[in-house]
This record gives sequence, C-alpha cells and structure tokens, in this order.
Amino acid sequence: MNPNSWLLLCRTVRFGETDAAGVMHFQQLLRWCHEAYEESLERFGLPASEIFPTPDSTPEVALPIVHCSADFRRPLVCGAPLSIALSPQRIDPSCFEVRYTFQSNELEVATGLTRHLAIRTDGRQRCELPGGINRWLEASTLQAGIQPLS
Amino acid sequence: MNPNSWLLLCRTVRFGETDAAGVMHFQQLLRWCHEAYEESLERFGLPASEIFPTPDSTPEVALPIVHCSADFRRPLVCGAPLSIALSPQRIDPSCFEVRYTFQSNELEVATGLTRHLAIRTDGRQRCELPGGINRWLEASTLQAGIQPLS
Amino acid sequence: MNPNSWLLLCRTVRFGETDAAGVMHFQQLLRWCHEAYEESLERFGLPASEIFPTPDSTPEVALPIVHCSADFRRPLVCGAPLSIALSPQRIDPSCFEVRYTFQSNELEVATGLTRHLAIRTDGRQRCELPGGINRWLEASTLQAGIQPLS
Amino acid sequence: MNPNSWLLLCRTVRFGETDAAGVMHFQQLLRWCHEAYEESLERFGLPASEIFPTPDSTPEVALPIVHCSADFRRPLVCGAPLSIALSPQRIDPSCFEVRYTFQSNELEVATGLTRHLAIRTDGRQRCELPGGINRWLEASTLQAGIQPLS
Repeated sequence: MNPNSWLLLCRTVRFGETDAAGVMHFQQLLRWCHEAYEESLERFGLPASEIFPTPDSTPEVALPIVHCSADFRRPLVCGAPLSIALSPQRIDPSCFEVRYTFQSNELEVATGLTRHLAIRTDGRQRCELPGGINRWLEASTLQAGIQPLS
Repeated sequence: MNPNSWLLLCRTVRFGETDAAGVMHFQQLLRWCHEAYEESLERFGLPASEIFPTPDSTPEVALPIVHCSADFRRPLVCGAPLSIALSPQRIDPSCFEVRYTFQSNELEVATGLTRHLAIRTDGRQRCELPGGINRWLEASTLQAGIQPLS
Repeated sequence: MNPNSWLLLCRTVRFGETDAAGVMHFQQLLRWCHEAYEESLERFGLPASEIFPTPDSTPEVALPIVHCSADFRRPLVCGAPLSIALSPQRIDPSCFEVRYTFQSNELEVATGLTRHLAIRTDGRQRCELPGGINRWLEASTLQAGIQPLS
Repeated sequence: MNPNSWLLLCRTVRFGETDAAGVMHFQQLLRWCHEAYEESLERFGLPASEIFPTPDSTPEVALPIVHCSADFRRPLVCGAPLSIALSPQRIDPSCFEVRYTFQSNELEVATGLTRHLAIRTDGRQRCELPGGINRWLEASTLQAGIQPLS
C-alpha cells in the first residue's frame, strides 16, 4: 500500500446509486464524500470511536458539517470504478474542510467539499479541533507537499 | 380526514428512489415502511420524542427492529402515487409487528413487515412495550374491526 | 390551499434520517431538496412523466444537476417539522437553479441549492429548457413578486 | 486473496448508516446485501454491464428482487468491521436466492435474503436466468461444498 493511501481511496458505483436516467443520482456523491472522510481517518489510524459517538461513548467534541457542495462533470454508470483523492485543510483552530476529487478511468468526473466545525458535545459551543484530527490534517498537508509531479 | 387516517397514508415515488432499471429500487420500500410507522404514531398523537431518542432526551425503552421482510408484485415508476395501509399487531407483551400494504391506482404493488422488540435503553434487556405504543396497538385493532366491507 | 403552495412545502424529520449524533445527517438535506423540487412540479401541474424517464417513456430533454450546495445552521432532531420554501430561477436558456430555505418552528435551519442543465437525452448536448419547466420558472418568479410583506 | 473471496466480503459501518439510537439503522442492511451481491459478481468476473442496465446498453434479462428479508441479532456501532458471507442458490430455472450472513468480531450480527426473478426486459415475462448468473450459481455451490470444517 502506498504511503499516502489514506488520501487516495477507491469504490465502485453500485446499482442502487443510479436513478431512472441510468446514471448516479447526485446525492450519492455527498455520501461517498463522508464515507471517504471516515475511511481516511481509519486508514490514518484514528479509531472511529475517537471521533464518532456510539451508545457507550460520546467524544467531547463533535464535528458537524456546516457547509457542503458538489460539482458534477460526467455521468457515472453502474459498475464504474472510482478513485477519490482527498485534500483536507485546516481553516482555523475550530474548522477544517475536505476537498474530494473523483476520477473514473483517469477522467475527473466530480468534485465535492465538506466543511466541519468543532463544537463541544455538551452545550454546542465552538471549540478547538480534537488532537487526532489535527494530526491527520498536518500529516495530510505534508503528504500533499511531496506528491510526485505528474 | 377520515377517522382511521393514522392507518392509511400516502406518498409518491420520487426520482432518487428509482434505479437504472427505471423503477423503484427495492430497499426504498423498507424505508417507506418505517416512515409510515412514524407518521402513523404522529397522526395518532404520540410525539416523536416519546418514542425516538434525541440529544436532549432518551426514552427508557427502545424498539429496535429484529426482523423485516418485503414482497414486490409490480414495478413502480417515478411519480406513481402510493397508498400505504398499516396493520399493527401485538405479538406478546414485549413485541409487536406492523404489516404494510402498498397500493398504486388500486392495485397491490408490494407488502412489507417490520417486527419490533421492546428493550431497556440501559442494559438492552427485553421489557414491556411503552404505554403509548400499547394504546396505538389497541386503537388500531379496534379500527381494523370496523373497516367497511369492500 | 394557498395560491403559492407549489413553492412552500412541508415534511417531518424521520428517525432513519438522523445519525448517532442524534440529529439529521447532512446528506439527507440534498435528498429533501430534490424531493421538494419534484413535489413543486407536481403541485404546479407538471406530470412526473413529462420531466423524468420511466421504462416506457424518456423525455427528449434531461435536467441533470451539475452543482449543488447546502448550509446547515441548526441541528434537527427526529420529529422536527420543516417548511421548505423554493425559489426557482432561470440562469440562461438552458440552465436554472432552485434555492431552498428550510425553517423549523419559524427559525431558519438550513439552505440548499441545486443547479440543473438541460441536455438532449440522445447525445447529451446542451439544449433549451423544456416548455413545462419554463412555465414553472415564470410562474414562480411572478409568485415571488407578490409575496405578502411579513 | 483466497479462492472463495467472491463469497466472503468486508465492509465497515459508517456514521451515516447509524441513527439517533446510536446504532446501524435497519434498512441499511438490505443495501449492504445488494452491494455485496454486486461485488460478488464483479469479483467472480461478470462485468456489471452484463447484468445491470446503463444508458448505452440494456441486458435482455432483468433480475428484479421479488422478496427480501432480514434478521437483526446485535446492534452495530459506527466503525464496526463486518464480514459478509454469501450463499447463492438456484431455486428454479428462472429464480435464485442469495443468503447473506453478517459477522462482526466473529459474532453473527445479522442475516439477509434476496430472491431474484429473471424476466425479459421487453415485456417482463418470466424467462431463464442469464448464462453468467448460472455460472456464478454453479461455482458458488461447488465452492460451498469444499468449505473447511470449522
């Protein structure tokens, strides 16, 4: 597995993600973005329970999405292979964004963006990003700096 | 609104619920069943917060689904109007089922079933159904008894 | 029903639309936007089959989403009532946008945006918006001009 | 990769698949079943375009689901790893079923079932299963016969 594999993920378009126009229904892309963000944290080594609540444990800080967007460039059919490149970036001490670039057969097919705000779980006041997220953001920025020329 | 309106609901098939075969994708039906169950409780007069957890309040009893099934008789296209008839039934003091019959243009198109078990939120031991659910089950059984002949 | 009811719709947050943080999961909002767009066309009098494909008929013009975005201002719990105000706007002869404003208990909770492009179903070249969509856009603009002061 | 890898798949529970009770929302399981069926065909070597329609090609035979069911034994939290074992079985020349057994940390957590009927795309009459599906069913039955004792 290559060293930056936590920033380059794969999936395949599934039948239930298409609509009667025969291609991927737009809202699936935002789901893929969030699942890619979760898989990226997992591959980087952050356990889900450190970031996401379960019935047995609630992290002190939640990271709700306050903004998202997506642009669609080409239709995607069932079975199409996708690569997803993530570019996480800290915006300020309590906010980060992730940009997602989707390619299929080496053509850019779509992009997505999610912006996350750190808030205390009790009270919902804005607060600093959790340590694990900061480490992931820093490592991702370093990784981006040593991408091969292409 | 007719008196048994909490047991007869409506919705329309939406574009994002179809797949590339041009018709409703099967898993949407189970979502429709659960949403119909929620709407039925709401119309009957049970506030959602009495049954479902929110960040501010967790009911003492949860009602997870332990079994579900569905049968599909006819394809459903985008825009098709649906009626959903619910038949809730108590199975034992800690368990109930809901049967859902979907019609479109007076033809039966699908049926669904969800079986719910009452468990304590702390500890997950089986327990008695909540009072509100029991009232809804009883009223639904009475209502079913006075359906018009057809 | 009030005269501009095709631009002001309602729904309730359902249990399956929440996540383990106890509130609506962000991607549901984009689904709500598209379903509101479909319901608006339906209430305005455009049959779904005129706009969306079915196995038996494919409109000559498709209206894929090329861009979407959403902003989230307040968390939404299961059972929360929502009003959805739509503002459709023509951008150019082959493109329109719809802005969606979500309120719950008279507070703005979220906004959404979808941008649609008209393309020929055979060949996918950009083309003029269908007549029905143009009538809906014009009537919506007129309606917006006579909103009551509030 | 082990020889029967087309019948043993993996995934992780994602945040958007949980609900406000903190655990996987039931209807996701049916989605996982269908995606596992698609991934199994893909790994076996059947291209998606041979089985599922796209705007450019429609297979002569469609395989709609006529029945599905699921049983839920344990709650699943965000981040839980899942293994999915598939048991496809021919029922008659125009019908097959797939049984899905979900384990997490070596405990059975859920099972699912989908029943598929072969119909002609033009006319929707019942017909024989496609050759590719028959090969996958036969190979899966053989594979099941040589599972290690456990």
